[in-house]
Amino acid sequence: MTTHTIVSSKTREHIIGFDKPFTIIGERINPTGRKKLAAEMKAGNFDTVKSDTLAQVAAGAHMLDINAGIPLADEPAILAETIRLVQSLTDLPLCIDSSIIAALESGLQAYQGRALLNSVTGELEQLEQVMPLVKKYDCAVIAISNDETGISQDPDVRYEVAKKIVEHAADYGIKPCDIVVDPLVMPIGALGDAGKSVMHLIRRLREELHVNTSCGASNISFGLPNRHSINAAFLTMACGAGMTSAIMNPLHDQEKEAIMAANVVAGNDKDCMRWIKAYREPVAANSSESGKRIRRRNRD
Amino acid sequence: MTTHTIVSSKTREHIIGFDKPFTIIGERINPTGRKKLAAEMKAGNFDTVKSDTLAQVAAGAHMLDINAGIPLADEPAILAETIRLVQSLTDLPLCIDSSIIAALESGLQAYQGRALLNSVTGELEQLEQVMPLVKKYDCAVIAISNDETGISQDPDVRYEVAKKIVEHAADYGIKPCDIVVDPLVMPIGALGDAGKSVMHLIRRLREELHVNTSCGASNISFGLPNRHSINAAFLTMACGAGMTSAIMNPLHDQEKEAIMAANVVAGNDKDCMRWIKAYREPVAANSSESGKRIRRRNRD
Repeated sequence: MTTHTIVSSKTREHIIGFDKPFTIIGERINPTGRKKLAAEMKAGNFDTVKSDTLAQVAAGAHMLDINAGIPLADEPAILAETIRLVQSLTDLPLCIDSSIIAALESGLQAYQGRALLNSVTGELEQLEQVMPLVKKYDCAVIAISNDETGISQDPDVRYEVAKKIVEHAADYGIKPCDIVVDPLVMPIGALGDAGKSVMHLIRRLREELHVNTSCGASNISFGLPNRHSINAAFLTMACGAGMTSAIMNPLHDQEKEAIMAANVVAGNDKDCMRWIKAYREPVAANSSESGKRIRRRNRD
Repeated sequence: MTTHTIVSSKTREHIIGFDKPFTIIGERINPTGRKKLAAEMKAGNFDTVKSDTLAQVAAGAHMLDINAGIPLADEPAILAETIRLVQSLTDLPLCIDSSIIAALESGLQAYQGRALLNSVTGELEQLEQVMPLVKKYDCAVIAISNDETGISQDPDVRYEVAKKIVEHAADYGIKPCDIVVDPLVMPIGALGDAGKSVMHLIRRLREELHVNTSCGASNISFGLPNRHSINAAFLTMACGAGMTSAIMNPLHDQEKEAIMAANVVAGNDKDCMRWIKAYREPVAANSSESGKRIRRRNRD
């Protein structure tokens, strides 16, 4: 049994799936912790949004996350404006990211295509506000595996929360393939078994609940030195356990290369063609073989 | 249920185990495909063996594989001599590696400690020659999951071969914890599902047969460009699936770093102390904090 979560922009479709290369969702357009970006967006200056969009597209992101969470700002309006701008710059499908229901709806109204809504949790009140939006706008949604009781340390409790969300969605006629579960990644420097338990959960979510998964990958390395290597190992291992996407920085080469290699090892890079295309050595200009080819071309 | 494979030299014990950091078995002392080393060893010159031993120890190998497979040479005598030499240089436990039974026995006679014998297969004739040696010399053994019918493409058939070897060993009073199974890694450039099927097999070997595992990791990337990154991804993913050791080149920094990061993510680097020790940034000499410490020390 395989699962495809289909998202789109006006002109481009993207599939998050068990049998697809890992989906990289660019995380950069998010003012949280970025004072300059927050001030710009609040003032209606979208220069950084524009450059971050183009940089993430160039780096090979498959989708972009759009967040406009700025304190004391009109988040619904700014989110909608940001989405319209980004959609004028790229045809990548977007992830509409807010903790405010009105902002999610405003983003959905502005968006052209089938979005990924970020996010819903297992909290009943929130579920009952977000799920009608998912149904009304026919989008997919990221479901975070915590509820009123908080984030359980026990991955099997988090599995039950995810299952509850999937069942709740079914009541609205929303299919499991439109739920992308975030198993919640904790910092391993503080919780030594954070990696082990999230891998266990990712595997269960895939094999038993048959849903796609996503996460904020860099949480894992919080507080540790040489974070890129820890992130790369986490993403590779998570891909092996069955994770199908992550919200991450596509400008970080080490993580991106790890994901490309993980696609090869997991069998999701058909005939290793993406890998070979990216890394094959160019034929040396002075080798006899290329020399022949050059001479031949000159004769033509 | 956890499993510990205990190996030792005269003065040092090492444990390959589910709850231990991944075991790196240095592969360099092997004349296969190394003409200069083969000629040297045949002529009784052990200069390269000596330098390769010291380099692998310095690079952080936990065990060293010793192979003396040289065509038309007296392999049993050379293997024994190499083992004696290497044991005079390092206290790391060794892996005695040959396809010739007489060489395995000669190596075991020369070895001081509890060796890891490399290897036995599921072929009945070979099993009946190697298992008595494992019993007589009380060592551990690498079991390769192929038999008279060759190497199956089906990981579940390979699982059955491994199970047969473990059962056969039990007839000699050899415990499953002294069998380290090599699931056989195929080149992914030729067999697109090689990674997927070996991960499936590693997981079954750990969860159902409860044995440690090892492999020649670099096979996976044969024929592909940028092999180190593919090897690193393979090792990380295999570690996540439960593999506990690999025969590899410890001088390759990228693979070694990937394994160290995989230990962190898999929860086998207690409090991330190995990682932090290896990668924490040195305190700058002119920072106020270290300046204070230096001043204080000067006052003492």
